[in-house]
Amino acid sequence: MISFESDYIAGAHPRILERLAETNMEAVSGYGMDSYCTRAKEKICAACDCKDAQVEFLVGGTQTNALIIASLLRAYEGVIAAETGHVSTHEAGAIEAGGHKVLTVPQKEGKIEPASLKAYLETFYADENHEHMVFPGMVYVSHPTEYGTLYTKKELRELADICHTYEIPLYLDGARLGYGLMSTASDMTFADIARICDVFYIGGTKVGALCGEAVVFTKKNMPKHFRTFVKQRGALLAKGRLLGIQFDTLFTDELYLQIASHAIQMAEQLKALLHENGIPFFLESPTNQQFVIFENKQLEQLQKQIGVSFWEAYDENHTVVRLATSWSTTQNDIDELRKALTELA
Amino acid sequence: MISFESDYIAGAHPRILERLAETNMEAVSGYGMDSYCTRAKEKICAACDCKDAQVEFLVGGTQTNALIIASLLRAYEGVIAAETGHVSTHEAGAIEAGGHKVLTVPQKEGKIEPASLKAYLETFYADENHEHMVFPGMVYVSHPTEYGTLYTKKELRELADICHTYEIPLYLDGARLGYGLMSTASDMTFADIARICDVFYIGGTKVGALCGEAVVFTKKNMPKHFRTFVKQRGALLAKGRLLGIQFDTLFTDELYLQIASHAIQMAEQLKALLHENGIPFFLESPTNQQFVIFENKQLEQLQKQIGVSFWEAYDENHTVVRLATSWSTTQNDIDELRKALTELA
Amino acid sequence: MISFESDYIAGAHPRILERLAETNMEAVSGYGMDSYCTRAKEKICAACDCKDAQVEFLVGGTQTNALIIASLLRAYEGVIAAETGHVSTHEAGAIEAGGHKVLTVPQKEGKIEPASLKAYLETFYADENHEHMVFPGMVYVSHPTEYGTLYTKKELRELADICHTYEIPLYLDGARLGYGLMSTASDMTFADIARICDVFYIGGTKVGALCGEAVVFTKKNMPKHFRTFVKQRGALLAKGRLLGIQFDTLFTDELYLQIASHAIQMAEQLKALLHENGIPFFLESPTNQQFVIFENKQLEQLQKQIGVSFWEAYDENHTVVRLATSWSTTQNDIDELRKALTELA
Amino acid sequence: MISFESDYIAGAHPRILERLAETNMEAVSGYGMDSYCTRAKEKICAACDCKDAQVEFLVGGTQTNALIIASLLRAYEGVIAAETGHVSTHEAGAIEAGGHKVLTVPQKEGKIEPASLKAYLETFYADENHEHMVFPGMVYVSHPTEYGTLYTKKELRELADICHTYEIPLYLDGARLGYGLMSTASDMTFADIARICDVFYIGGTKVGALCGEAVVFTKKNMPKHFRTFVKQRGALLAKGRLLGIQFDTLFTDELYLQIASHAIQMAEQLKALLHENGIPFFLESPTNQQFVIFENKQLEQLQKQIGVSFWEAYDENHTVVRLATSWSTTQNDIDELRKALTELA
Repeated sequence: MISFESDYIAGAHPRILERLAETNMEAVSGYGMDSYCTRAKEKICAACDCKDAQVEFLVGGTQTNALIIASLLRAYEGVIAAETGHVSTHEAGAIEAGGHKVLTVPQKEGKIEPASLKAYLETFYADENHEHMVFPGMVYVSHPTEYGTLYTKKELRELADICHTYEIPLYLDGARLGYGLMSTASDMTFADIARICDVFYIGGTKVGALCGEAVVFTKKNMPKHFRTFVKQRGALLAKGRLLGIQFDTLFTDELYLQIASHAIQMAEQLKALLHENGIPFFLESPTNQQFVIFENKQLEQLQKQIGVSFWEAYDENHTVVRLATSWSTTQNDIDELRKALTELA
Repeated sequence: MISFESDYIAGAHPRILERLAETNMEAVSGYGMDSYCTRAKEKICAACDCKDAQVEFLVGGTQTNALIIASLLRAYEGVIAAETGHVSTHEAGAIEAGGHKVLTVPQKEGKIEPASLKAYLETFYADENHEHMVFPGMVYVSHPTEYGTLYTKKELRELADICHTYEIPLYLDGARLGYGLMSTASDMTFADIARICDVFYIGGTKVGALCGEAVVFTKKNMPKHFRTFVKQRGALLAKGRLLGIQFDTLFTDELYLQIASHAIQMAEQLKALLHENGIPFFLESPTNQQFVIFENKQLEQLQKQIGVSFWEAYDENHTVVRLATSWSTTQNDIDELRKALTELA
Repeated sequence: MISFESDYIAGAHPRILERLAETNMEAVSGYGMDSYCTRAKEKICAACDCKDAQVEFLVGGTQTNALIIASLLRAYEGVIAAETGHVSTHEAGAIEAGGHKVLTVPQKEGKIEPASLKAYLETFYADENHEHMVFPGMVYVSHPTEYGTLYTKKELRELADICHTYEIPLYLDGARLGYGLMSTASDMTFADIARICDVFYIGGTKVGALCGEAVVFTKKNMPKHFRTFVKQRGALLAKGRLLGIQFDTLFTDELYLQIASHAIQMAEQLKALLHENGIPFFLESPTNQQFVIFENKQLEQLQKQIGVSFWEAYDENHTVVRLATSWSTTQNDIDELRKALTELA
Repeated sequence: MISFESDYIAGAHPRILERLAETNMEAVSGYGMDSYCTRAKEKICAACDCKDAQVEFLVGGTQTNALIIASLLRAYEGVIAAETGHVSTHEAGAIEAGGHKVLTVPQKEGKIEPASLKAYLETFYADENHEHMVFPGMVYVSHPTEYGTLYTKKELRELADICHTYEIPLYLDGARLGYGLMSTASDMTFADIARICDVFYIGGTKVGALCGEAVVFTKKNMPKHFRTFVKQRGALLAKGRLLGIQFDTLFTDELYLQIASHAIQMAEQLKALLHENGIPFFLESPTNQQFVIFENKQLEQLQKQIGVSFWEAYDENHTVVRLATSWSTTQNDIDELRKALTELA
């Protein structure tokens, strides 16, 4: 079935499968001590124009958020996130399971506004009682956000400046970073992200890999014995090559950006198509996820042909759904959606 | 280079890579709700002759141990393990990071003797002070053990009987279960393991998969909302298909047992070869791992041609090393080792 | 100095100190296995008209909240609380340190409205994605609340009914329970609280004890081996008598309610006094805490003579402060405050 | 009944009760911000001849061990302790509940021998696999030990030297420190302990207080925002005065050492008495706890008159029991024991 349900409906980019096959019988060291991991790390450092970057590979997004946050916070600290941040809502309490509170600030289209962050921190330190409260110990932003929206370079810098005033790190969740960087609305590169943030991750799972996220510490700030911490949290793969080969492939000849760019082109067509058919937007994003409102009966009909993702009820008769493109979306997918939408009326 | 370093030096069994490629562009649901996971679970239930078994897929061994143990223990309980058990020694404190103590009992060739377990439990409950101690809440055994040794069906049943007397579950870590089942010394099948143990896992990573372990709860005892717990601990793959397809493949036409059997045949040749060359055994096991003692200079020479794994210093001039075969070991590997050993003298 | 800063500014009710002195040289068993603890528990069961109640003594409020919540929740669950609940804001992340999220709902004068609770639970289970979210596992209310307000019996019953529909326990934090029960606005007794709630605690620290809170499980629902859990969390006193003697004293001849009643009488005088002097109320409560707004210069002058507690900034020129009475407030304290207020103008 | 069961059978030293009564109605700040806490801290600094010592008061021993260890260790570290250490055996897994493994080394009469510690650390770092193991992050010793034995200054220095070589702190659990310092076998003072150890605590509960332990960080190494951490772990008393007044009293006119000295004199009489009556020692200690072996029938008879503490079964017909003196032991207690022992034969 044609599906726009998410950006993780297909397997891996074919080039990745080829490389896995080509290298399959080579005997290499375990636990990420292989040459593919090494090479992938070097390529990521180069792409980020940050030769001192410290890179580690993890398996999935929730795991990555949980480990980075737990490894950087002290016991008495929590992480500031938008109230719609993935760590606040859809990670089943992974941050709290690690012992830390998620301190929420208001969001606007999924983003934290610098003024909100500043207000939170000022209010916290103004409270005479703050010794009995959770100290804000880092800031979490997702880019693109859960709503597909993007920070501008100026906004991200302002957030970073506030963080540095309070001496807390800025962490960027880049589960869909490729789609963010290749958006026509983007004014940032890997190098900008690396310069501005203290730590971020480059999402593989949603941008062409079978699994895998590349964590990048940009200020020589990787916690001591981080690999042992990763092992302790059950996140160190025996066959680390699985991650190394994937990221090595994605960062060869800019495959990562190239496939993200394809997804963005598909998303532009998708948006045009939705507009043409008069489907009202709940949120039109500059990246690969679009949120639109369907009349319930129409939605029921559509779903017989096209996979889309329930987001939330809009009112009694309408539903917000998400349609996502990805590296695997084809022109045929778009054409089939066109047909299905035409038939709706 | 030829390597007997471990059973995770190569990628995946070629049939797995083929299946990943064949299914790659199919759009399927995320988080393990795809048909490959469903089918793999059904096949595992069938192989275990346990139609009510509850199966979930996880990514790696330490993660699996940590999650099963934390999900089954209450706060005031710990897990009993051999002092050489993987959870006791080489998981960087993963069990303790989950809040629980590993309660160690003596080992014999890596195994817990039923009498040791019984003595531990009797002593615990005899202690008037035990309300201030960690309650033994489950028993962990590995099969094969970290030393490649095996429990007999009788021994495993005795351990299970003791567990049931004290109303605590018996958990079997089957990271290398295939190699155990296909050993000529084995008197157990999947069905025996499933009947005797309350929960166990079938190791994929070390038996032909890129990654992945299949957890089997055999007594309808999977903790409520286990998937949410898995998500919370960062262990739920967005592309659950990666695990489903691998286990579906491994449990089609008994591939899992067939490739394990090959490793055992290679191990038998390996043992013969070591004996022929007069290399003294530190521990000769009935499975795929062998532990031998090399004179240090010889070892240095050998390692130029053949990868082996440092285990521990034996004395000033000798070292214990591990040689492991696996599904990927070839006749050529054995032949090259033969040559290298001959050249040692 | 005269102080209305809090209800824990003085030591213990003199009768408690007398009993500590009278019993001081008796040799008794440790860890709460003494006859004073036993007797105190019996008296609390009687006061609650709940002969099966299971009572344990803990040392302080944050500890009590943390232990009860952690002992009743499963790993994948969180606790619902008002966004102004003590566990949400002023316990330095104690609940999260125990691995659980505090799920906040809107508050009205510090209370959770039954409709808000119902809406939260309905919305949670309506979300198709809730398997990736923190399950609501219990409800926390404080009574009196952090603002000194009270639930009516009808409101508390409605909350309990909703909890039972969803099969989650209702937990009442009674740090200031005595002041709540003796308020003229109260329509509940200990027995009502015990009948309606699944677990609650009777606060000692703020109602005449040096330290100590009495936890009451009312439905034979005390978690198994709770004492071992208490020991594990560092909350089991070697000299458990310290808590037993205090609660035995407080529950002899209704001392607990009697001294709480005195505090309420003092609070009524306090409120009258504030009204007479035209001090605007931020929140006028039916219990022992009152929240008023002072002009900053007046406040500065007042604080030279009378201790009050900063609550929050109201605007540039005004501040919200809390004044609390307690079992230790004297007529002289009130008279001195009268003088000080008169001098303000 | 006469009891030698433990050193926490009685209430508090009468001087403490007097001071609690004298200061009872003073209005003071909460959470340890009162003048009694301040003064007690100053006196402790003076007693330790360490003007930069950072002192905080906690409530009990397990709580203190759990908090100090969790606050000083990093996630990937564990604490080294003797296999008989209190944290290893009788704290219900408090250290593991905080996420850390207790790494046990052999003991001799409850003590860690410097050579054992050195061997442990050398072996750990020699293991090529140690990145997958729990890093030793601090050393825990108790002084007196659980068996009443004492380290010499030389031994403690050697342990400290080894710790400093490996850059890990040495922590001394002084639950019974007074009895250690006043033993005739002791060659150390508070000042020696403070100079040699990185952190230790002065036990109050077992040396005359109702409750309370004074933590002393000696190298300006108190973790940042330690008070918030204490609050988070439920260990911050609202009425901090309860601890401040007790330690202020104990450190006025050397009351702490004076009452400990009394206990030691009683212990010397106790030992003589046991020898006179031919009761064999399991372990004769230089402090206030003695371990002797009774024939079971004699023990049964004795316990009708005198409280003693079961330690462990010796053989089928004999039992090891502990007899402890304390600040509250009287000459009459000794005389009654003499009578009871005489009647045994």
